[in-house]
Amino acid sequence: MKLYDSKMAPNPRRVRIFLAEKGIQVPDDQVDLAKAQNRSPEFLKINPMGGVPVLQMDDGTNLAESVAICRYFEETHPEPRLMGIDARDKAVVEMWQRRMELNLFSTVTGCFRNTSEFFKGRIPQVPEYGEVCRQAAEKAFGMVDGFLADRKFIAGERYTIADITALVAVDFAKLIKLRVSPEQKNLARWHEAVSSRPSAKA
Amino acid sequence: MKLYDSKMAPNPRRVRIFLAEKGIQVPDDQVDLAKAQNRSPEFLKINPMGGVPVLQMDDGTNLAESVAICRYFEETHPEPRLMGIDARDKAVVEMWQRRMELNLFSTVTGCFRNTSEFFKGRIPQVPEYGEVCRQAAEKAFGMVDGFLADRKFIAGERYTIADITALVAVDFAKLIKLRVSPEQKNLARWHEAVSSRPSAKA
Repeated sequence: MKLYDSKMAPNPRRVRIFLAEKGIQVPDDQVDLAKAQNRSPEFLKINPMGGVPVLQMDDGTNLAESVAICRYFEETHPEPRLMGIDARDKAVVEMWQRRMELNLFSTVTGCFRNTSEFFKGRIPQVPEYGEVCRQAAEKAFGMVDGFLADRKFIAGERYTIADITALVAVDFAKLIKLRVSPEQKNLARWHEAVSSRPSAKA
Repeated sequence: MKLYDSKMAPNPRRVRIFLAEKGIQVPDDQVDLAKAQNRSPEFLKINPMGGVPVLQMDDGTNLAESVAICRYFEETHPEPRLMGIDARDKAVVEMWQRRMELNLFSTVTGCFRNTSEFFKGRIPQVPEYGEVCRQAAEKAFGMVDGFLADRKFIAGERYTIADITALVAVDFAKLIKLRVSPEQKNLARWHEAVSSRPSAKA
């Protein structure tokens, strides 16, 4: 088993934090995104979508998509539960994980992809759309601050995969110069709490 | 239990097909998106993100996000399995579901959102980004055609939630005037097969 990883990109960090919370160690192989190694013919055989992370399993299966990799480890190493406990709870955690992904993570990364020097020439950038994403990301910061007014973590009283997605998004937002504002006291309190967990270093 | 639904939008159809495959009936409440009922203060109390579908559970929980609603019914009504069987299979199905969502569904709906009359004045549209989405959607049609060369369904030999996401995306693509081309024989064969299931009428 091997994890195709990149320290540069936000998605692989989601999986690294998830693994750290579970206390699982998986050998890694760093893919050099700056050199477009993820777009090489060799890597496209591993993941035709060209993304990292990818978990290469012992039977040769190449499992791509961060949340799918997390799902595998949630099933094989259930404790601590990061994707919910019973039917209702699993669904509620999935709702919050998706809300964090669609409204926060995707808007932050959408802004970065469409406005950064890094992606210039790599994808068709539309800076005007990047600005739409930036405004949506700013709004999402405010919404998440509101959601956190009455609970400890994103999906309730327990740390879950929804916190991981949100943490990685908030940290990555520095690259689009978006930070937690002093008035966002709930978001700031939560960010300090999740950042102080050892897994945040992953 | 009640499903806030809309016959107009693609996401609720994913849940309706999923329920039809499981043989589950849930009373529905139609939300009028044309009249922006989903943006009314009453509806935003049910789902602050303003999206449909939402499953209102008997304990009062409002469960939003299509895939989270599917997850709930997969847990409570396991047969037929639409989200995988064992750990590896669940992860592989989730990978394909997400690939269909990120590369096909999101590009089709991203084009529609940024170019349609319907969304004019409702969201900040960026037509240039809509065209980027259209090209990505066209490319995704070709990729899915390739993936289907060696298997019956998107995630392998069994019908899964990945087929549902892909079917809804391909059907919704008519609204951006994108259709399966005659050369895409695998995609056409698959589309005919999944469209002929009774659930496709949902």
